[in-house]
Amino acid sequence: MSFDTLQEKIRAMKNPTVAGLDARLDYVPSHITQKYIEEYGQTRKAAAEAIYAFNCGLMDALSDIVPAVKPQAAYYENLGWEGMEMLERTIRYAKKKGFFVIADIKRGDIGSTAAAYSEGWLGKTKVGDELLPGFDADCVTLNGYMGSDAIKPFLKDAEAEDKCVFALVRTSNPSAIELQDMVAGDRVVYKVMAELVDRWGKTTSVGQYGYNRVGAVTGATYPSDLRQLRKMLPHTFFLVPGYGAQGGTAEDVHYAFDRYGRGAIVNSSRGIMCAWKKTGHDGVDYAAAARDAALEMREAIRAVTPIL
Amino acid sequence: MSFDTLQEKIRAMKNPTVAGLDARLDYVPSHITQKYIEEYGQTRKAAAEAIYAFNCGLMDALSDIVPAVKPQAAYYENLGWEGMEMLERTIRYAKKKGFFVIADIKRGDIGSTAAAYSEGWLGKTKVGDELLPGFDADCVTLNGYMGSDAIKPFLKDAEAEDKCVFALVRTSNPSAIELQDMVAGDRVVYKVMAELVDRWGKTTSVGQYGYNRVGAVTGATYPSDLRQLRKMLPHTFFLVPGYGAQGGTAEDVHYAFDRYGRGAIVNSSRGIMCAWKKTGHDGVDYAAAARDAALEMREAIRAVTPIL
Repeated sequence: MSFDTLQEKIRAMKNPTVAGLDARLDYVPSHITQKYIEEYGQTRKAAAEAIYAFNCGLMDALSDIVPAVKPQAAYYENLGWEGMEMLERTIRYAKKKGFFVIADIKRGDIGSTAAAYSEGWLGKTKVGDELLPGFDADCVTLNGYMGSDAIKPFLKDAEAEDKCVFALVRTSNPSAIELQDMVAGDRVVYKVMAELVDRWGKTTSVGQYGYNRVGAVTGATYPSDLRQLRKMLPHTFFLVPGYGAQGGTAEDVHYAFDRYGRGAIVNSSRGIMCAWKKTGHDGVDYAAAARDAALEMREAIRAVTPIL
Repeated sequence: MSFDTLQEKIRAMKNPTVAGLDARLDYVPSHITQKYIEEYGQTRKAAAEAIYAFNCGLMDALSDIVPAVKPQAAYYENLGWEGMEMLERTIRYAKKKGFFVIADIKRGDIGSTAAAYSEGWLGKTKVGDELLPGFDADCVTLNGYMGSDAIKPFLKDAEAEDKCVFALVRTSNPSAIELQDMVAGDRVVYKVMAELVDRWGKTTSVGQYGYNRVGAVTGATYPSDLRQLRKMLPHTFFLVPGYGAQGGTAEDVHYAFDRYGRGAIVNSSRGIMCAWKKTGHDGVDYAAAARDAALEMREAIRAVTPIL
């Protein structure tokens, strides 16, 4: 599914947010974890099943109000292959529930290696005469430090499968400035990256909302950069991390949207996943707490940015 | 295992090379692939088992002459979780055969996400009271576009587990120049990254050969950059891709080593894995062909760079 599909879902729910599915075991209420540890022992399998149950509970609570989910690969890879198996199940369940699925993998490698990553996450791998999907997300995040060679193989699959990508431009973390803010020529490094994103995007098809298949990750924690990037990249869909826990506000993320309140989606991970930690009920209410937090975030963003 | 262990292995074998384990199914001789397709059908399982058999055959043929292997995660992820399960087995088998294992994952994410990646690839994940390893490599490759936040969590595990990392500095691909060669202030971007690598490395312990725990990926295809980087980074171990298929020669990679022929390891993937494609025997001789290619590479490098 392309950014058009994502934009349609956002408009239908009047909610430009994506829920991160980044569960560490200590984000999962203990009644869930204990159940699977009793069944499977203190194993990776138990952890994977506990997180899967948690993920499904979250998705059940959110599917009519949140258009997209973003599983972060790290929180599956840390459980070895059992985590990766559970990630496949999580993505399948998410698609069944109607979510647009952004696999947050931040991969960045070149040539045939990039092509293999793309097969695994967006496209298909050939075995004999069969073309077999891997993790099969709708969209992935990518790192372009290695240049075009790291991005182009994904665009081929994106075009063929009607999918899309986000490349890192301006990340939301404190040390982002160490490299990204170096002045390079008359520009800073992240703007060089922004121009590359623009160039890559122009080689892809443009959807009815005016956005091509190469989006950009642009952190909420640097709102003035966000405003400049929105002007620089009128055909680039933005994924905006850093809302909530990292300090970004509804006012900050406002700059990511176009004048119709389109062209951007804001991520919240812990703010939704861990909302139960603030209600004082030991997590038996984790799904309801997540839903309340997601509704609150939607209202906060809509109050500043109407979605047309 | 740290760079000290790697350097000991290199000295013992007089061979500063690492064999890439980056098998696409079309790198695997058809007699192997057919066997597993007959057993499991045209499935990801069949592909994973064929590649595992190929990997083990390669490792059996190389373990007394090549000190390290470098599985590239992309070629496992493209087979979904079955590929990841097989990657775990490949790493276990490699360690059993005495190889130093570099997981080529080029991960780059921040804070608690970087910590989760580190748990999965170098360290351990907590489940109940148990600390469980994930893929458990000796070393990983990392991408520092997001700055220190993307690297430091790995250094904690590297120190605790006596392991190490390589951060991308100067990659070997043609489009590397698009970002890495932008002039930033009075330096180019990849030198800014080199300085960050130096800074990160200085926070870690230094081994008996003078190398700290943060190595650098420095491509063979830009030999004059390699020479400058070697001078800039006297305490940084180098991983040098780009030999052979990508155009780098023994003369080019010479610049990566210190005056004792230490402090660097040169990768060859297709040159070794696909050597059988040049012998005209349909791959029944793939293991012997790989061994011959590895010996030839060793001699070519040693002729220019004696290993003391």
